[in-house]
Amino acid sequence: MRGHFGEHFRLSIFGESHGPAIGMVIDGIPAGTPIDEEAIARDMARRAPGSDPTATARKEADRVRIVSGLYQGRATGTPLCGMIENTNTRSGDYVQLQTKMRPGHADYAGQVKYGGFNDPRGGGHFSGRLTAPLVFAGSIARALLAAQGVEIAAHIAAIGGVQDARFDPVHVDAQTLRALRERRFPLLDPAQEVPMREAVEAARMNQDSVGGVVECAATGVRAGIGSPYFGSVESVTSQLLFSVPAVKAVEFGDGVALPGMTGSQANDEMTYENGRVVALTNHNGGITGGITNGMPILLRAAIKPTPSIARAQHTVDLSTGADTTLSITGRHDPCIVPRAVVVIESALAIALCELCMDDAATHAL
Amino acid sequence: MRGHFGEHFRLSIFGESHGPAIGMVIDGIPAGTPIDEEAIARDMARRAPGSDPTATARKEADRVRIVSGLYQGRATGTPLCGMIENTNTRSGDYVQLQTKMRPGHADYAGQVKYGGFNDPRGGGHFSGRLTAPLVFAGSIARALLAAQGVEIAAHIAAIGGVQDARFDPVHVDAQTLRALRERRFPLLDPAQEVPMREAVEAARMNQDSVGGVVECAATGVRAGIGSPYFGSVESVTSQLLFSVPAVKAVEFGDGVALPGMTGSQANDEMTYENGRVVALTNHNGGITGGITNGMPILLRAAIKPTPSIARAQHTVDLSTGADTTLSITGRHDPCIVPRAVVVIESALAIALCELCMDDAATHAL
Amino acid sequence: MRGHFGEHFRLSIFGESHGPAIGMVIDGIPAGTPIDEEAIARDMARRAPGSDPTATARKEADRVRIVSGLYQGRATGTPLCGMIENTNTRSGDYVQLQTKMRPGHADYAGQVKYGGFNDPRGGGHFSGRLTAPLVFAGSIARALLAAQGVEIAAHIAAIGGVQDARFDPVHVDAQTLRALRERRFPLLDPAQEVPMREAVEAARMNQDSVGGVVECAATGVRAGIGSPYFGSVESVTSQLLFSVPAVKAVEFGDGVALPGMTGSQANDEMTYENGRVVALTNHNGGITGGITNGMPILLRAAIKPTPSIARAQHTVDLSTGADTTLSITGRHDPCIVPRAVVVIESALAIALCELCMDDAATHAL
Amino acid sequence: MRGHFGEHFRLSIFGESHGPAIGMVIDGIPAGTPIDEEAIARDMARRAPGSDPTATARKEADRVRIVSGLYQGRATGTPLCGMIENTNTRSGDYVQLQTKMRPGHADYAGQVKYGGFNDPRGGGHFSGRLTAPLVFAGSIARALLAAQGVEIAAHIAAIGGVQDARFDPVHVDAQTLRALRERRFPLLDPAQEVPMREAVEAARMNQDSVGGVVECAATGVRAGIGSPYFGSVESVTSQLLFSVPAVKAVEFGDGVALPGMTGSQANDEMTYENGRVVALTNHNGGITGGITNGMPILLRAAIKPTPSIARAQHTVDLSTGADTTLSITGRHDPCIVPRAVVVIESALAIALCELCMDDAATHAL
Repeated sequence: MRGHFGEHFRLSIFGESHGPAIGMVIDGIPAGTPIDEEAIARDMARRAPGSDPTATARKEADRVRIVSGLYQGRATGTPLCGMIENTNTRSGDYVQLQTKMRPGHADYAGQVKYGGFNDPRGGGHFSGRLTAPLVFAGSIARALLAAQGVEIAAHIAAIGGVQDARFDPVHVDAQTLRALRERRFPLLDPAQEVPMREAVEAARMNQDSVGGVVECAATGVRAGIGSPYFGSVESVTSQLLFSVPAVKAVEFGDGVALPGMTGSQANDEMTYENGRVVALTNHNGGITGGITNGMPILLRAAIKPTPSIARAQHTVDLSTGADTTLSITGRHDPCIVPRAVVVIESALAIALCELCMDDAATHAL
Repeated sequence: MRGHFGEHFRLSIFGESHGPAIGMVIDGIPAGTPIDEEAIARDMARRAPGSDPTATARKEADRVRIVSGLYQGRATGTPLCGMIENTNTRSGDYVQLQTKMRPGHADYAGQVKYGGFNDPRGGGHFSGRLTAPLVFAGSIARALLAAQGVEIAAHIAAIGGVQDARFDPVHVDAQTLRALRERRFPLLDPAQEVPMREAVEAARMNQDSVGGVVECAATGVRAGIGSPYFGSVESVTSQLLFSVPAVKAVEFGDGVALPGMTGSQANDEMTYENGRVVALTNHNGGITGGITNGMPILLRAAIKPTPSIARAQHTVDLSTGADTTLSITGRHDPCIVPRAVVVIESALAIALCELCMDDAATHAL
Repeated sequence: MRGHFGEHFRLSIFGESHGPAIGMVIDGIPAGTPIDEEAIARDMARRAPGSDPTATARKEADRVRIVSGLYQGRATGTPLCGMIENTNTRSGDYVQLQTKMRPGHADYAGQVKYGGFNDPRGGGHFSGRLTAPLVFAGSIARALLAAQGVEIAAHIAAIGGVQDARFDPVHVDAQTLRALRERRFPLLDPAQEVPMREAVEAARMNQDSVGGVVECAATGVRAGIGSPYFGSVESVTSQLLFSVPAVKAVEFGDGVALPGMTGSQANDEMTYENGRVVALTNHNGGITGGITNGMPILLRAAIKPTPSIARAQHTVDLSTGADTTLSITGRHDPCIVPRAVVVIESALAIALCELCMDDAATHAL
Repeated sequence: MRGHFGEHFRLSIFGESHGPAIGMVIDGIPAGTPIDEEAIARDMARRAPGSDPTATARKEADRVRIVSGLYQGRATGTPLCGMIENTNTRSGDYVQLQTKMRPGHADYAGQVKYGGFNDPRGGGHFSGRLTAPLVFAGSIARALLAAQGVEIAAHIAAIGGVQDARFDPVHVDAQTLRALRERRFPLLDPAQEVPMREAVEAARMNQDSVGGVVECAATGVRAGIGSPYFGSVESVTSQLLFSVPAVKAVEFGDGVALPGMTGSQANDEMTYENGRVVALTNHNGGITGGITNGMPILLRAAIKPTPSIARAQHTVDLSTGADTTLSITGRHDPCIVPRAVVVIESALAIALCELCMDDAATHAL
């Protein structure tokens, strides 16, 4: 499972934050799929830093150069490789970090795993920058799904203690989702933008950071996608969601609220509506028995506060074998939640492509 | 990913609730591993119904017959297949369920996926009974890990609104975990047993059901297991956790509480303790950057209330194409949380075996 | 890849020759597929020993008990497990073999791999008996393909030095293939049966054995199945063919004769025939660039002589650490080629199902 | 299996002959492995065209730019991506080929598979140029194995009808193999170079091409690598060998000669030699039961004649739906066998790395 997702819509990602380039190989894009590089660039821009005041001041161009799998504007059907050159790196910022382990980061775990041979500059392969390839792949996945009537979008459900409204689990519609994707700071209740930005600014002023929650929905997904057990929609999607650095909890439907409910509250009763089976509620988030049931898919990803903070922290220095104090300088987001929105959307889009393709395979013969 | 987990400690499960048998094939058990059938039987008994008043009155023998991969009490190194005959089935209970879709169950999603050809008796392949093979595999996995000094146990963190205490995230130790596994109703604070049982009994009296939370810990896991992104400890473990029917949310470390914290609160500062790097707190649940960091692993799985309830529910009848009312008769648990404890432990044990073996492969050459 | 084939038509096999049972799990049979147990039994009988004078005198019932994935005569779409109990075993025949390594067998390699923990009785998991699950899976695969107009059959292309005729690479048709499958000793030129049987009998009289070649064809396979490189038809099919014990060479099309040809001889020129593209010759065996081209698929598998022979052989005794002499007693085929015919057919059928399903996945979106 | 090999030493390749670049991602190189770019360049040069008179006059620089997974000269342990820019392409040579299907090539099969969307220039993704990434990966794999005492090399066993000597199956040694790798035209019997070159030149003069055979050996491979059935050494290696365009037959040990032998001739008798178990002969090519037995590994790959020939061939024109005649112009090898030597070595090296890592995983716990 290392470095690789999927059996049908296969994704391999590579790169280090301060190495020559990062990128991805996608194998499984249907031949003839139009590759809209402008649409991809718009999605990439949603993740890129510097596009919003909550984000780091670094300018990452994040221009993807497609070096294979594309011919005359369409996917060839053979593996598509996209590359993003790393042009704006200041490795000098990171020198002390080679031996001083940043709390909350992969530094120590990675040092042990790779015996100290991994690239420490900017977090190396562990950098959140590696979510850019996910967004690239997600953008292609979402276009494939959109052609089937599936819409996917997410919003900032919380930053720090400030909550946005939640999706209407039954009536969330494609139009709402499309509108969300147009917003730089996507909220269902725009009135929460100011307090959320204030929470981020307060953290920054305090040399600290805040976390948040991203809620994501998909509409138009037909019933019957996914498999029981290891190939459940939740299993496959959560594998991708937990690949996103900083995600530490994943909920489907009512998630952590479900244990406090009774069966009669949590069960989604069904009815015929214009000859079609629908549920009256959607506590299960569109998934029962690991399989889509035709209702909107709903999930939430909890994102921990950015571990890179300027205030002094106690940690270890592997070069001296002694404790030390670390103040992380450089450009860091006090809150990555706004940039994570499109990453979470991408994870769901990639998972649904994989699952749709898996389902098609079982109907081939 | 269908019906199959892992690349090293490979697990395939099969069977339907009322078919001839259920079982599993495990490929990857090291040759010479002692297979302690008594220890496995004890774990199976922890999942089996009827062992506790909260559970259904059905008696499932759940005797596993190992038909391959075992020779003179030890694993041969070739695939081990275990079978559990289904002897105590009352299919008559389920006749109406072939067309009346039970709310909260996989019935409708499964009908669509399999075109109506799946076995509807007792939930067929979707039955929670299929977690028995997980427990079998988990029991072997846990024995393998125990030989490396890894202990895994879980407790009932909540039933309905009643909460148990939580694991001490830093100091939880092997002795605590071993003691938990001896308890029929595993709690850190035994005083919660009575109110929890009352909550279950109240639901039963009300023809209803309740959900809960299982919290699981592993101690003794060395740093450096897991991989960034798609092979993260969280990704691999959550794939298994979300394979367990009724699990709808998974949290690692402080999980859903992390978004409300600041970076300075959530980061786990590190220190040298007797020459060993340890963290002073464990908000990350022993995993940073997707890789174990040597601290205890901590996770929580939210389990929705059992969807099978006796009270009348509104649903659809596929045979008439009209709405109907359904009262589910038969023997059903008003709360599956106590039986789920060992299943969640098993998921973590299997994931850790897989990840340890993956790590070993990368150090082979 | 251990113990497991495929991503779509997934196959796991398990069992030891003298253990309680052998069997297989197949995940990926489309829901609703009729499972014709009589047809499967006929295929199993073609592989079973004792059905032909060239084969061992053992009687293996090889009755498959399907314990999951089957409901009312059709596949449920969830994993199908089939079991074959081992009822007719004489482990006494094999006692000396635990330490005396049979030349040409897996004994020594397996001892090293499994540290001596593998089941030595009757070859354990290495036994050719494990091809029975392949035939079971192949029978289902062939039925799926037959519904698409694909026919697969093989013949005994050679036994010892006696050659059968070869398939007409361009005009081999479904009728020829169906007729071959009805024959107990399938040959294109029935005149070769007597000399072939004489070669086998001569080997037996000489306490020796002979090998042979199986040639297999598939008609009706549409163009466009398979992928370049690692997913080529040859790659996927050869993985299965080389899984069959005793297969030591695999050829597609003209195979080992191609190096001696020129490009102008080996290239298959094309023409329009009734508006359809066909080739005038078929030196490539229906596969170009790893992908089917619509011509019949043709392959040959070279099968080494049965290593179990009665005459005394020089070998090592691991218990004494000294050389020894070994005479293998017991019931052994002087020639397994006739029984291998249906196994080779099965390998091709399974590979084509896998590849068809893979192709369908890439056209899903 | 599409576009992707392995579970441990994972390899993804991408690119089209005339697209911006080709390349590969390798996931699984142990952290800290020295990456000797000079040694890799030497291996790449052995495959590159233009280095020998038998090859095309094109100059492919084949300079690999490593863009990830490398830090301070060593593998980081995270995915390594290498890119080869396509700088010397003359697409004009290929215009007519978009609709006129070259006999013996993937053109028609690929057109059907990809619906005409694949890149037709220079064969696109089907180009033999995609073996360059295999050689890159193979060079790293061979260095890893060399550190374990494993040597791998191949020679030109035949071109057209001219045969080289064969490896001594028992006594082939590391020194012989190292010497072979230094030769531009690797032969065991150098006297065959002149007649082989004459055969190639005769084909060229005749506007035709010739095929050949590559024989490959590995010494120093310990017993116990590989698995029975689907993970056999032969299965895994042949998946890679048949990924190489033009390979149409694969033999292990005595291969196609084994069917004509008796068991007493083909079995490899064993003896103790200095306390170590060795075989007196090696008809099985170092593999029994799918597992290495400690003897040298021996295999042969049959390579069909280059399908690109200048002489006029009959074929179809998809744009007119009518037959046509095609003369392939441009720079083409009349014989690719010398360049294929290092590709075949690479396939074996990659397979052995994968299998060694798989074996290590099963000994981890």
